[in-house]
Amino acid sequence: MKRADVVIIGGSAAGLQAAIVASRHYMIDSIIVIRREEKVLVPCGIPYIFGTLGSADKNLMPDSLLGNAELIVDEATAIDRSLQTVSTAGGETIGYKKLMLATGSRPVVPPIPGAELENVFTAKKDVDYLTELQRTLQEAQDLIVIGGGFIGVEFADECRKSGLNVTIVELLPHCLQLVCTEDLCVRAEEKLREAGIRVITANAVKSILGDGKVESVELSDGERLKADVVIIGIGVTPNTELAREAGLEIGEQRGIKVDEYMRTADPDIFAIGDCAEKFSFFTSKPVGLRLASIATAEARIAATNLFEPRRKNRGAMGVFSTKIGDLAMAVAGLHERAAAEAGFDIITGESAAVDKHPGSMPGAAQLSVRLVFERQSGRLLGGETCGGSTAGEMVNILAALISQGVTAEDVVFLQVGTHPALTASPLAYQLVTAAEQALARVA
Amino acid sequence: MKRADVVIIGGSAAGLQAAIVASRHYMIDSIIVIRREEKVLVPCGIPYIFGTLGSADKNLMPDSLLGNAELIVDEATAIDRSLQTVSTAGGETIGYKKLMLATGSRPVVPPIPGAELENVFTAKKDVDYLTELQRTLQEAQDLIVIGGGFIGVEFADECRKSGLNVTIVELLPHCLQLVCTEDLCVRAEEKLREAGIRVITANAVKSILGDGKVESVELSDGERLKADVVIIGIGVTPNTELAREAGLEIGEQRGIKVDEYMRTADPDIFAIGDCAEKFSFFTSKPVGLRLASIATAEARIAATNLFEPRRKNRGAMGVFSTKIGDLAMAVAGLHERAAAEAGFDIITGESAAVDKHPGSMPGAAQLSVRLVFERQSGRLLGGETCGGSTAGEMVNILAALISQGVTAEDVVFLQVGTHPALTASPLAYQLVTAAEQALARVA
Repeated sequence: MKRADVVIIGGSAAGLQAAIVASRHYMIDSIIVIRREEKVLVPCGIPYIFGTLGSADKNLMPDSLLGNAELIVDEATAIDRSLQTVSTAGGETIGYKKLMLATGSRPVVPPIPGAELENVFTAKKDVDYLTELQRTLQEAQDLIVIGGGFIGVEFADECRKSGLNVTIVELLPHCLQLVCTEDLCVRAEEKLREAGIRVITANAVKSILGDGKVESVELSDGERLKADVVIIGIGVTPNTELAREAGLEIGEQRGIKVDEYMRTADPDIFAIGDCAEKFSFFTSKPVGLRLASIATAEARIAATNLFEPRRKNRGAMGVFSTKIGDLAMAVAGLHERAAAEAGFDIITGESAAVDKHPGSMPGAAQLSVRLVFERQSGRLLGGETCGGSTAGEMVNILAALISQGVTAEDVVFLQVGTHPALTASPLAYQLVTAAEQALARVA
Repeated sequence: MKRADVVIIGGSAAGLQAAIVASRHYMIDSIIVIRREEKVLVPCGIPYIFGTLGSADKNLMPDSLLGNAELIVDEATAIDRSLQTVSTAGGETIGYKKLMLATGSRPVVPPIPGAELENVFTAKKDVDYLTELQRTLQEAQDLIVIGGGFIGVEFADECRKSGLNVTIVELLPHCLQLVCTEDLCVRAEEKLREAGIRVITANAVKSILGDGKVESVELSDGERLKADVVIIGIGVTPNTELAREAGLEIGEQRGIKVDEYMRTADPDIFAIGDCAEKFSFFTSKPVGLRLASIATAEARIAATNLFEPRRKNRGAMGVFSTKIGDLAMAVAGLHERAAAEAGFDIITGESAAVDKHPGSMPGAAQLSVRLVFERQSGRLLGGETCGGSTAGEMVNILAALISQGVTAEDVVFLQVGTHPALTASPLAYQLVTAAEQALARVA
């Protein structure tokens, strides 16, 4: 029987990060990673296989990241908590001192009639499956994307690049509505339409029709759309079967219950990433955020707590970013609606300026920022950025500031590096100006 | 006699920001800005006039930023503190309740023989002067840049774009040495040489030679270099004459002395920006940093303290960024040498990864980060970023974190937004990995 001090089940973002941190930074040198997949996909890169990257093979995480950890490609089928072993489909039994569950999540397939038809796909993290999707798309003309969240919007934008007729069908009044304020949703939809994508909102796919293969979809309002391929991107559900069968508790957001050290009820078993239950950084209540950046943060926490509790989880914040056409957009923490729903009395500040200076610098693009503060305390709760590509790192300034509990006054004191080719002018730096605006509204 | 509640002398970054914040955010509606220049240049944009932008007119700050503030183009020549008036060269007398000195700085001309010759220039913030420099460069073949700091390096890189033979002469062993660690200095020099610029370090211009006009320069080691134009970029000195003549005190770093509310010894007179004395965010000691981003931060402080003390200055941090060829580089806070000189026992962490992910995304470039922490407390003291253009905003994440006094542990908890087209992978995010590395070194 194989044995290791640490056994990690799952080799995507969370499992890999845990192996890296445990081995590289904490000198734990007996680590086994059990994963089902021969090759691991970069999860956020999946939509880009179908346009920018061109193949699933260009979207892989290199196994070299595992360092000294031993990799076993096999499926874990059962955990024996009393013997401290994991059994696999391949017939192995692997002993652990500490076990880390990083079993991830899988795409949700809604109960739509016809969802089982051929050429209906999801964003399943599987190289062969996605290669089959790619082959199918190459022979297709009409693609329907069900769901206008990040994954749906990115799939649509990328697939359109190869000339497909693409239609997004979103249940809510706007694409991206769960994550962004309306202004950003509208800008995203404009970009999609500019690219030639049909965006249908406040409507649903009632059924997927076809004889064996998908041929069309029927919407709630009765419209029927021709379809050679359907991609469903409406969310994920955590993979918790293994934990459940081992008697571990599942939380109200369907993740494996963990304490602030990422330990399950069994002190020798940790859970991290999409399969683990999360609580909000802002409200401490259970929250359904599932992002690679949260998964890796949890992995860094758990990997240092393996043999003694050291790092406490501070809660999940939610930082999203994407790029639609040439428009980058990103959100950190609570946007206005989310803050209001969480019971905060809020005040906002906005600012827009070119992302280079003066505006005559080549490639200068407008970049806007919207900040949300708690009215009474002035505490920064969230914000959005939208514009040129630096929006992707600017939102991380926001994330850093939010994580430290700063106020609008603190933001005003920021000294930022500014340069003609790299940022807005120091006179117009968006974060600072937006904070000043919010303060003026309170005054 | 004209009168205003607030009179601001100087209309560059600090003066303009003070007018904006006082009027837009604090409803002070009686503001006069007195400035000498008909048109105001974007200070950090000056080198870009000579390559990327193509003319000084493309590098102006629009007067529209002044909002309701009244602009008087004239030179302030004296302050009468008892009468609370400012006299101008144009014969006006302007009464103030509160006076803000934002008189800026001017380039230092070193006592080199020949510095007075025709075709010897500095980065003087004057449209006509720089237009004359541009005209002169258009007829020149050989340019010598004295000083390999940011301004010198940027001038050299831009002027080279129009085909000039450019040589930088730097006194220290490396360009940018006062601000960056050696690694970045070397990378910058490589980029300059790749562009065809000759970089001479650990050497000085002993004299500038010519008959009326500059013809050559002679170095300390005896080498003589042909020169049609010389640009001197070795630093600036604060404009404090007006303050000095009004009896206000000057500090050891040659700036006008101010308290933590940016007030001079006269409670009705404030000083901000390059003309004001600064103290270090890290050591509270006087410091010679003069940057537009510090100037605007000071303006935001002073503008809210005009009629009651509200915002306390937290000290100057120093955040620099630049781009040489396609290489962006930036520094926030104390680099290793500066931290050691300030008496800190330090530990560093480094990380490099592509700035998109997977690395096969088009346009992906390596982006490296180096962080400096105080060993005992783990407090983040400074850092550098170098690589693709997002280094310019990534250094502002660092600046934000430093301003909040975070530790390496806090950095590890960061949840950052990551996206294939916008950032590194969440598994390899440079700031976090560098912090983990520093922690591993302490452990």
